[in-house]
Amino acid sequence: MANEVILLDFWASPFGMRAKIALIEKGVEFDKREEDLSNKSPLLLKTNPVHKQIPVLIHNGKPICESLVIVQYIDETWGPESPLLPSDPYERAQAKFWADYVDKKMYSAGRSSLWLTGEAQEAAKKEYIEFLKVLEGELGDKAYFGGERFGYVDVSLIPLYTWFYVFETLGNYSMVEVCPKVVAWAKRCMQRESVAKSLPDQYKIYDYFLELKKKRQAQ
Amino acid sequence: MANEVILLDFWASPFGMRAKIALIEKGVEFDKREEDLSNKSPLLLKTNPVHKQIPVLIHNGKPICESLVIVQYIDETWGPESPLLPSDPYERAQAKFWADYVDKKMYSAGRSSLWLTGEAQEAAKKEYIEFLKVLEGELGDKAYFGGERFGYVDVSLIPLYTWFYVFETLGNYSMVEVCPKVVAWAKRCMQRESVAKSLPDQYKIYDYFLELKKKRQAQ
Repeated sequence: MANEVILLDFWASPFGMRAKIALIEKGVEFDKREEDLSNKSPLLLKTNPVHKQIPVLIHNGKPICESLVIVQYIDETWGPESPLLPSDPYERAQAKFWADYVDKKMYSAGRSSLWLTGEAQEAAKKEYIEFLKVLEGELGDKAYFGGERFGYVDVSLIPLYTWFYVFETLGNYSMVEVCPKVVAWAKRCMQRESVAKSLPDQYKIYDYFLELKKKRQAQ
Repeated sequence: MANEVILLDFWASPFGMRAKIALIEKGVEFDKREEDLSNKSPLLLKTNPVHKQIPVLIHNGKPICESLVIVQYIDETWGPESPLLPSDPYERAQAKFWADYVDKKMYSAGRSSLWLTGEAQEAAKKEYIEFLKVLEGELGDKAYFGGERFGYVDVSLIPLYTWFYVFETLGNYSMVEVCPKVVAWAKRCMQRESVAKSLPDQYKIYDYFLELKKKRQAQ
């Protein structure tokens, strides 16, 4: 059977980065297609008619949407010798719990802390820092969130590292003071080829954010 | 090994209902403990320190939190002869996509349509109806969301049926006009012992909602 793997992506999206990391971890060759989010391709609209968002993984013509669903699909489909999720149901549940936490808490508070203004922004920033501290506590002295091996929770969280410089610069705080263990963990993850290849430079993300902000303010 | 299963629950919570349905589907005996949400038990605070929310499933002393994570854990731990999630990775991904849709879209818009006021409430109501129509289209002429068998997406969505009367009464619309296939599907689900035993009466939920609203307004 042909094994055609296409990823509809956008370089600055943490969600797209999750899919790329998982594919590279599993040694899957894929055709990465960059989307223009202000002018989405017919293929994106056709393969993700519900959300119309990247990433979309298209495996032999069949689309899979939503980044964590994609990462789980990749884990179940390729490279059983290097699993991202643990095999034990209880440990799997814990990994899913923390990835869900990252999704529900970190991304929304992070976004609010960048885009809101005044008191609401300050509240979102405080919340974001609280969430980071919860993750700092959960990581503790482990090498990765799941223990000794890079896994599912790491894949879900590490793309946010590219946005750390934006957060600390605009929020006027220091990540390494708030969550030193998480920062050390992120640097450890960055030594992996899958992560290094999938994450853009923090300064590039910072420039991208400033430009995006200018555009929105001009609208 | 002892197989002690405790569920920390609250009768009107759709999330608690998901866990109950899955446990009954799998024939698991469990000790259901009703929580007073205004005075949470030490056991709840200890077993779900991050979110402090029900449901919590405690299996032989080990807690699992977040309703969809709990349903997946139940599916992986008991009754492999009656799976809730399909075994094929692509079909599994589709089921997870739709359960995620229900979680992210239906519950938040539903809540907003009940608790917001004025224009914001009207907008949330419209959004909620749009989401229902998307589900109506996805269900189509299938018996259940996954096809012929009651499964994961059904478990994730059916608890909302208990709130349908609240939505249509307060929103002044008719569910059966908006989404006749979803209503027929819900009635089909209600014929299952697992669902009938887990879902409270719609009128009881309506009274509960009115009382809750009065309390909040008095605060």
